[in-house]
Amino acid sequence: MPKSMFYGSISSPKIDVTVDMGNPFLNRTVDGFLKIGTVAASRVAVEETYQCVQKGSISKAKFEDALKKMCKEGAYWGTVAGVYVGMEYGVERIRGRRDWKNAMLGGAITGLLISAASNNRRDKVVKDAIAAGAVATAVEFVSYLT
Amino acid sequence: MPKSMFYGSISSPKIDVTVDMGNPFLNRTVDGFLKIGTVAASRVAVEETYQCVQKGSISKAKFEDALKKMCKEGAYWGTVAGVYVGMEYGVERIRGRRDWKNAMLGGAITGLLISAASNNRRDKVVKDAIAAGAVATAVEFVSYLT
Repeated sequence: MPKSMFYGSISSPKIDVTVDMGNPFLNRTVDGFLKIGTVAASRVAVEETYQCVQKGSISKAKFEDALKKMCKEGAYWGTVAGVYVGMEYGVERIRGRRDWKNAMLGGAITGLLISAASNNRRDKVVKDAIAAGAVATAVEFVSYLT
Repeated sequence: MPKSMFYGSISSPKIDVTVDMGNPFLNRTVDGFLKIGTVAASRVAVEETYQCVQKGSISKAKFEDALKKMCKEGAYWGTVAGVYVGMEYGVERIRGRRDWKNAMLGGAITGLLISAASNNRRDKVVKDAIAAGAVATAVEFVSYLT
């Protein structure tokens, strides 16, 4: 029954790995990296499983490809989330307040860093920072609503 | 001083419009639409302002173009957020529990609806649903961390 396998792989992950780095800033960053990295890796796993179920075949090469993709996406999402969580915490410490502006600033700094690290042009870096700040603000509002 | 103008336009919006539709499901959806739509419109406004500041010129045609873009992006983000918030609430009511699985299911349903509404192929719709579920789960984890 491929369908039950499909569901099983969604609801199984219990994510509660914690690594203590002895510093709240680093702890959050590592925590964000691990958790969101796991989510991204699961997404790739589910998507690849869906493709296999649809085509009805699985090969070793395809499995290895999926594994490689899981690591790559997991590392990318994990890095973005780790940087964001760390930056949001940093902004909160500096501003001494908890509100949606932390999310906006944290998101903007994260967008700036990630975009600058990917060797984009200065123009693109600023646009990415603005977009990331907006996304982070939107997410903050959504999490208040839900 | 273009720089101070730039900052002023970021920190000014105080978003607290509420429309009572007499139904918690609709209230949330409308609330999500308005709030996230405003955030998206602000993003476009900031980005266009940055471009104007950089080029040092502003024309009537450009301003109208920016306004049109603000409405379009605001409506798109707002729709996505409204559907997500409504779905997350619906899933919570049906499941009777509050955890990250609500976010995952709500995100997946939202991705499914938005993707299906944009006339995508069945394959793409499922992939979008998986991706949206993963993003919503990631966001849920990040909002616990921060």
